[in-house]
Amino acid sequence: MPLILVTNDDGVTSDGIHALADAMKPLGDVVVVAPLQEASAIGHALTLRRPLRIETVAEGVYGVDGTPTDCVNLAYAIILKRAPDLVVSGINKGWNLGDDITYSGTVSGALEGALLGTPGIAVSVKRMETYDFGPAAEAGAKVARAVLKHGLAPRGFINVNVPAGMPKGLRVTTQAKRNHVTKIDARTDPRGNAYYWIEEALDEYHPDSGRTDHEAVKAGYVSVTPLQPDMTAYESLEPLVKHLK
Amino acid sequence: MPLILVTNDDGVTSDGIHALADAMKPLGDVVVVAPLQEASAIGHALTLRRPLRIETVAEGVYGVDGTPTDCVNLAYAIILKRAPDLVVSGINKGWNLGDDITYSGTVSGALEGALLGTPGIAVSVKRMETYDFGPAAEAGAKVARAVLKHGLAPRGFINVNVPAGMPKGLRVTTQAKRNHVTKIDARTDPRGNAYYWIEEALDEYHPDSGRTDHEAVKAGYVSVTPLQPDMTAYESLEPLVKHLK
Repeated sequence: MPLILVTNDDGVTSDGIHALADAMKPLGDVVVVAPLQEASAIGHALTLRRPLRIETVAEGVYGVDGTPTDCVNLAYAIILKRAPDLVVSGINKGWNLGDDITYSGTVSGALEGALLGTPGIAVSVKRMETYDFGPAAEAGAKVARAVLKHGLAPRGFINVNVPAGMPKGLRVTTQAKRNHVTKIDARTDPRGNAYYWIEEALDEYHPDSGRTDHEAVKAGYVSVTPLQPDMTAYESLEPLVKHLK
Repeated sequence: MPLILVTNDDGVTSDGIHALADAMKPLGDVVVVAPLQEASAIGHALTLRRPLRIETVAEGVYGVDGTPTDCVNLAYAIILKRAPDLVVSGINKGWNLGDDITYSGTVSGALEGALLGTPGIAVSVKRMETYDFGPAAEAGAKVARAVLKHGLAPRGFINVNVPAGMPKGLRVTTQAKRNHVTKIDARTDPRGNAYYWIEEALDEYHPDSGRTDHEAVKAGYVSVTPLQPDMTAYESLEPLVKHLK
């Protein structure tokens, strides 16, 4: 039986992670290792300045007082008896699209699996008032079955985003580019001192004739983006050599 | 005069950031906005669950109680009078090489500049007992001059890593691949409960015939890697379409 590690960034008590774990159970032995507290927008952070604790929440369900990346590392080194065959992260309440994946704890869980040698899958669904995780769990299971059967390129991981309602189908997509604008809400405290909230960043994507993750979910399709960790700008190597002479 | 934003993840009081700021002063107007506390291995984290404060440390030097990514966003939205022409992050005490850049607060500062439309440069030097930031500051200034003169491709940023001692020269490189192994140090507290430290990850890079960042610094050269945020695995798009049918 394949061994499947399930993590997330919304925390081990989130309903999204249990929907995902349930969807994985027909595919293999499932172990859940997830943050005890919400760790959204935490990116690919590792906790290095304090030690971590592992709490047994239920049979096969563990909480860690750290980030999704911490969870995956402790699962490999301490909790699991062998390296898993698949690392699945989510279901996140809110899409992780385009350049925003670099902030995402959910996607970082899948990335950490990939860096440790195991295919990773991140699953996110549109932010809503109330959640039906059914279509997202089904999409995650479909991608997981394909990955368990066919594998992924070395260091590969997959980013799945699911629209609200019943998806029209599934599209293999590329990472969209964003016109990145962060809105800051400046306030004044009762003592007259300024403080600042980082608000949701604005949703301004580059118009793109290609088939991006953003376009797919906006059109009502499940977006499935194959990713890898190499960010080298290969087309900039030659110009940079010239410019540094 | 170009406007240059300087940030880091070691904190606003780190000597590395002031060496970098000093090296930028001949090139433009320099403003420093950096975390009040060390934020290493924080990745591209954004602080969304609490508000942030800005502290004026000296003229043109600001501290923020958050991450490097928070600092860059507050600089753009609140502190600077206009968008900067360059975002420079560092000098980090310790290299940021290969896949490890996804964990790096230093590199994330430069990435955030790139996502906001400004070329970014991250500068890191080998971890040592005592630091001479001279060669790293000089390398950062050389790359900054080239970027201010020639620009970068849209959403481009550059990762500079500097060896110990006097560099043999400068190499334009690609991001190395790592055999990622995280070491966990398991301990028991005085009450008999287990706790876990994440140790430094092991230094096992893929043997690579190409010219990677890791090979350059090991050979005594300054490594200059052009990066961009798109992690799409383009060669996996077609196989994935087939496997999901």
